[in-house]
Amino acid sequence: MSAALPTLAQVRDAAARIAPHARVTPVLRSAALDELAGAELHFKCENLQRGGAFKFRGACNAVWSLSDEEAARGVVTHSSGNHGNALALAAATRGIQAHVVVPEGAVQAKLDAIARAVGIVHRCARTQAAREAMCAQVQAQTGAALVHPYADARVMAGQGTIALELLKQVPQLDALITPVGGGGLAAGVAIAAHALRSDLALFGAEPAGADDAARSLAAGARVTSVVPDTLCDGLRALVGEPNLEALRAHRVEVVTVSDAETIAAMRLLWSELKQVVEVSSATVLAAVLKARARFAGRRVGLVLTGGNVDLDALPW
Amino acid sequence: MSAALPTLAQVRDAAARIAPHARVTPVLRSAALDELAGAELHFKCENLQRGGAFKFRGACNAVWSLSDEEAARGVVTHSSGNHGNALALAAATRGIQAHVVVPEGAVQAKLDAIARAVGIVHRCARTQAAREAMCAQVQAQTGAALVHPYADARVMAGQGTIALELLKQVPQLDALITPVGGGGLAAGVAIAAHALRSDLALFGAEPAGADDAARSLAAGARVTSVVPDTLCDGLRALVGEPNLEALRAHRVEVVTVSDAETIAAMRLLWSELKQVVEVSSATVLAAVLKARARFAGRRVGLVLTGGNVDLDALPW
Repeated sequence: MSAALPTLAQVRDAAARIAPHARVTPVLRSAALDELAGAELHFKCENLQRGGAFKFRGACNAVWSLSDEEAARGVVTHSSGNHGNALALAAATRGIQAHVVVPEGAVQAKLDAIARAVGIVHRCARTQAAREAMCAQVQAQTGAALVHPYADARVMAGQGTIALELLKQVPQLDALITPVGGGGLAAGVAIAAHALRSDLALFGAEPAGADDAARSLAAGARVTSVVPDTLCDGLRALVGEPNLEALRAHRVEVVTVSDAETIAAMRLLWSELKQVVEVSSATVLAAVLKARARFAGRRVGLVLTGGNVDLDALPW
Repeated sequence: MSAALPTLAQVRDAAARIAPHARVTPVLRSAALDELAGAELHFKCENLQRGGAFKFRGACNAVWSLSDEEAARGVVTHSSGNHGNALALAAATRGIQAHVVVPEGAVQAKLDAIARAVGIVHRCARTQAAREAMCAQVQAQTGAALVHPYADARVMAGQGTIALELLKQVPQLDALITPVGGGGLAAGVAIAAHALRSDLALFGAEPAGADDAARSLAAGARVTSVVPDTLCDGLRALVGEPNLEALRAHRVEVVTVSDAETIAAMRLLWSELKQVVEVSSATVLAAVLKARARFAGRRVGLVLTGGNVDLDALPW
């Protein structure tokens, strides 16, 4: 296991570090959705996390892991929105500056949130290369510490605290599913969940239009040729190298879902669970309903990752 | 105090009676909404109650208060939707039949929910007189027991369980606000809340287009001339006679809000609290933001009454 991946001890440290700032999010259920899935579904509502997404956990852990000297020079990241907002909020808890590189195509509600959290926004083109180049430029100019949105052990450890919390709230889970974008959440959760419960079946949900993790696991090597084409704005990043290693080591099975399947699932989460969740979040329910046989009769934890949507541009 | 109003003991009995069937709903908070209101807002999420609305509490208490002989003949009610759905669900928990008289203009999502809960729907005209006539007809034909949506001590006692729960979850509340329609919720909550905490400031939120409770309290007598004209489909009923008596006895202050103010508040609840709530629910936040000085600096409990909305017909 690479040093770039966190251990259970580091996830536990992260939980203690973020406890004064992050929320313990509730787990909600719906009889109608259980019936539809033929399974017992436990939804971990990270749309109710500070900043409206799970990203606050990883960002907060990273910000509070810095030395005072490092922190004084601020932090920088690139993000389609939620991680940027989370880093700005986390930086504010420590009274330091956050720079956020945002690619074109980000959701307006997320940009507004970053501005509200007093982060400095730097725009760039959609590509991974453009994000990284702009990040490097800000780093060179300011000396800010890079807090990568997913390929960072501190960030993965923070996201992994979701597994600690969920397994305390619902100890008898049989399976657990998270969306897969860059893989910070999927890796952190896999590491923490398996360390506590090695028998737990782990799944990832990925948009068919950004299925690089599924392809990479199938190919046995990281596939970087995928050009993301999905409405799931939070899942367009390519899976990171250490993240992929964690998914492989923990035998995370990735289920791919079409945007149409995800939008139908999003509508169900709004109408039945009464939760405002963003489209990326709905991939997990779409996957459970699609790969029905994998989940039928089991107790399944589903991580609803965020709720920052543009209410004037709903996808149905 | 009229015998038509429940006592704290009856509210406590109701809590025990419905406990096997109803959910203990969570209380959610939002830093952004606190800041907007200049107050500490605690949202009691009855949109997450079984059936998607608080109405299940009162209906369930009424159904399980019947003798076996009464129950065998079924139950009947009139309702613009949520109470009808709740009664059908409650009847199902006891294996008995529910008849629901639904006036024209009800939200389709609520009609669908009644059908799903296997209630028998009877349509009628919008007026109070038409509702009551159709109800009487069904009663005459079937011998079903009437479970009035609000002017019924068993129903008020059931709704009052919200106050018991909320004051256990947030003991230090200074004020409490519910929407006012027929007044079943407002009366039940006022009775239970004041019995436990006589110093609590009690408020009601009423649409300006259905402000019969505000007018009745001002006039010192029940005003029945109001023809409801509001988007708040759950708040079109005239306040009941015993309900009004309870509001008066407990000095509930009614704040009226325009539909535009309510829609703006609904949007805030969706975007900031991440909760799918129906328009009637949003009157409470609209009232807190409008009558700002009444609530500023206080710990306020707000009852979000339901989340059954038509996602294809959002009011913004």
